[in-house]
Amino acid sequence: MSDRAHSDRIAILGAGLIGAGWAALFFHHGLDVCIWDPKPEALADVEARMRAPLAQLAEVAPGAGPRGTLTLCTDLAGAVNGADLIQENAPENIPVKHALYAQVEPLMADHAVLASSTSALTWSDLSPGLQKPERLITAHPFNPPHLVPLVEIYGTDPARLERAETIYRAAERVPVRLRKDATGHIANRLASALWREAVYMVQEGIADVEAIDAALVNGPGLRWSVLGAHMAYHLGGGPGGMAAYLSHLGPSQERRWAALGTPTLSEQVQADLVAGVDREAAGRSITQLEEHRDKALIAALRARKQAPHV
Amino acid sequence: MSDRAHSDRIAILGAGLIGAGWAALFFHHGLDVCIWDPKPEALADVEARMRAPLAQLAEVAPGAGPRGTLTLCTDLAGAVNGADLIQENAPENIPVKHALYAQVEPLMADHAVLASSTSALTWSDLSPGLQKPERLITAHPFNPPHLVPLVEIYGTDPARLERAETIYRAAERVPVRLRKDATGHIANRLASALWREAVYMVQEGIADVEAIDAALVNGPGLRWSVLGAHMAYHLGGGPGGMAAYLSHLGPSQERRWAALGTPTLSEQVQADLVAGVDREAAGRSITQLEEHRDKALIAALRARKQAPHV
Repeated sequence: MSDRAHSDRIAILGAGLIGAGWAALFFHHGLDVCIWDPKPEALADVEARMRAPLAQLAEVAPGAGPRGTLTLCTDLAGAVNGADLIQENAPENIPVKHALYAQVEPLMADHAVLASSTSALTWSDLSPGLQKPERLITAHPFNPPHLVPLVEIYGTDPARLERAETIYRAAERVPVRLRKDATGHIANRLASALWREAVYMVQEGIADVEAIDAALVNGPGLRWSVLGAHMAYHLGGGPGGMAAYLSHLGPSQERRWAALGTPTLSEQVQADLVAGVDREAAGRSITQLEEHRDKALIAALRARKQAPHV
Repeated sequence: MSDRAHSDRIAILGAGLIGAGWAALFFHHGLDVCIWDPKPEALADVEARMRAPLAQLAEVAPGAGPRGTLTLCTDLAGAVNGADLIQENAPENIPVKHALYAQVEPLMADHAVLASSTSALTWSDLSPGLQKPERLITAHPFNPPHLVPLVEIYGTDPARLERAETIYRAAERVPVRLRKDATGHIANRLASALWREAVYMVQEGIADVEAIDAALVNGPGLRWSVLGAHMAYHLGGGPGGMAAYLSHLGPSQERRWAALGTPTLSEQVQADLVAGVDREAAGRSITQLEEHRDKALIAALRARKQAPHV
C-alpha cells in the first residue's frame, strides 16, 4: 500500500469508463476523490460502475490500507476547488476540452495540476487558450487504467510533473515521462508499430490472425512483460551487451527494418481481421474476453509483486 | 504435466545454449533425449549447463511427472538413429547446416522430423540439397527456450508438422504455424517492428531508452502477455469488436502508421542506446539481469497456470 503521508485531493472530470477507473484507483489507494460529470445520469451510476474495478483492485493489492473518500459532484466548482490533481477525461475533441479548460482554470488552485487522460491528442493540441499552460500535463493511462500501471506524462513545468508523478505513484502507477510532446505518446506508437507488421503478415498470408496473437502472447509479449525491448537486445548481445549486439547484429536489424511492410486496410484485409479475431474469440463475447483479460492481468500483477520485472 | 502416452525419442544436435535448453525441456517433460555435439568439450559439460534450466523448470511445473532419459552421444548416428524428432541447433550458417544435414539424412528414420531451431534463416534457405525436403521443418524457439513457450513452425508436410507439434505440446510448448516461409518468422518480425519505433523515439529525443522500456513493460508488454495485438483492437472496438474498431479508427491507424519512423543506427544513436541500457541496468551485470528476467518469467508462467491468457 502507498504511504498516506500526503493528503492530496483528486478531482476526476468525466465519469465514463476511464474516469470511473481512475476514481476507483485513487479511492482504493486512500486518496480523496471528487468526481464530476456534466451528465447527471453518468454520475448517478458511477459508484455501481466502480464496484468491479474496486473488487479487482482488492485482488491485486489485498490488505491495502484505508480507502479514501468519494464525493459525487454535480457542479464543477465543487470538484475542482481544493483539488491538487484534476484528471480530465472528456471526449477526444479539442473544442470540447478547450471549453472545459476555460471553465476549470479560474476554479483551480494555482499549485494544482490539470492532467488530461487524452490518448489521441497532444499537449500542443490542448494547451492553447490556457491562461497558464504550465498547469496542464498530459497523463495517458493504458486501458484498463486501474490494472495496467503505465501513465505516460508530458508537460512543461518540472515541479508540477514531479508532484503529479508522486500522486500517481501513491496509487501504484508507473509514471513514465516523455521528453518531447508526441502523438501516440510512447505506448501507442509502439503498439501501432507492432500492429502494422501484424496486419502486414495477415495481408501477405504469412500467418493467420490467431497464430500471430498466439506467437505474441507466448513469445515477445510474455518477455516484454518482464523486460523492455532495448534491454532484451542488451541481453541478446551476450557479455558485451548492447554495444556487442549493435556491432554484430545492428546491420542485420537495419536490413530487417527495410523488409518490414506497411499494409493497407483494404476490404479484404479488414474481412480477414474480423474473421480472424472471431475464430480466436471462439464464441466468447467482448464482455467475457474482458473478464478473461482482467483475470489474467490480475494474476500477472500479483506475480510481479513476488518477482518484479527487470 | 503432459501425458506420457507417447514414447518419442528426441535427438538434440548441438549442445550450446539453445541445445542445452531444449535438452532440459524435453528431459524434464519425460521424453528420451540423446544430445550430440561435434565438440567433445561442449558435450562434456552439458549436464552441468542443464542444471539451472532444470531447476527453473521444476519451479514452473512443480510435481511434473517422471523425467525422461538423457544420453550424451559422441557420434551423430547414435543420436539420430531411432529419433522421432531431431532438433538441430548448429551455427546460423547455411553451408554448416547443409553439411550437417547431408550427414543426418541417411541416418534418420523416414518418418522422423528434422527441425531446425534457426532464427535468422528460413526453410527455403535450408531445404535445398535435402533428398526429402519434406522431412525438414523450421522450429524456432524464443529465448530462453525452456521458459518462453513459443515455437514457430514452418514446413511443407502436414503430417510431419502435426507430429512435431504434438511432441512440442508434450513439452508444454505452444507451437504456432506460419502459412508462408518468412524471414524472422512471426515473433522477430514483431520484435523488429516494435524496436524500430523504440529506436526512432530515442533518435528523435521523444523519450529516453529506460523510459521507453518502462512504458513497454508496464503498458503494452504487460497487456500482450495476456492478450494478442489483434484481440486488443477487437476489445478496443467496444461491443462492435474489430469491425467497429476498423470502421471508426482504421483511418487514424493508417495515418499513425504513416507517421512512424525508421531510424538510422548512427554512432550517436548507438551511443545513446548503450548509455540508456547502462542507466537502466543500474550496475547489474548481464548475468544478474538474466537471473532477474528468469525469476520474473517463472512467476509470470506460474500466474498463467492460475489464470490463462486470453
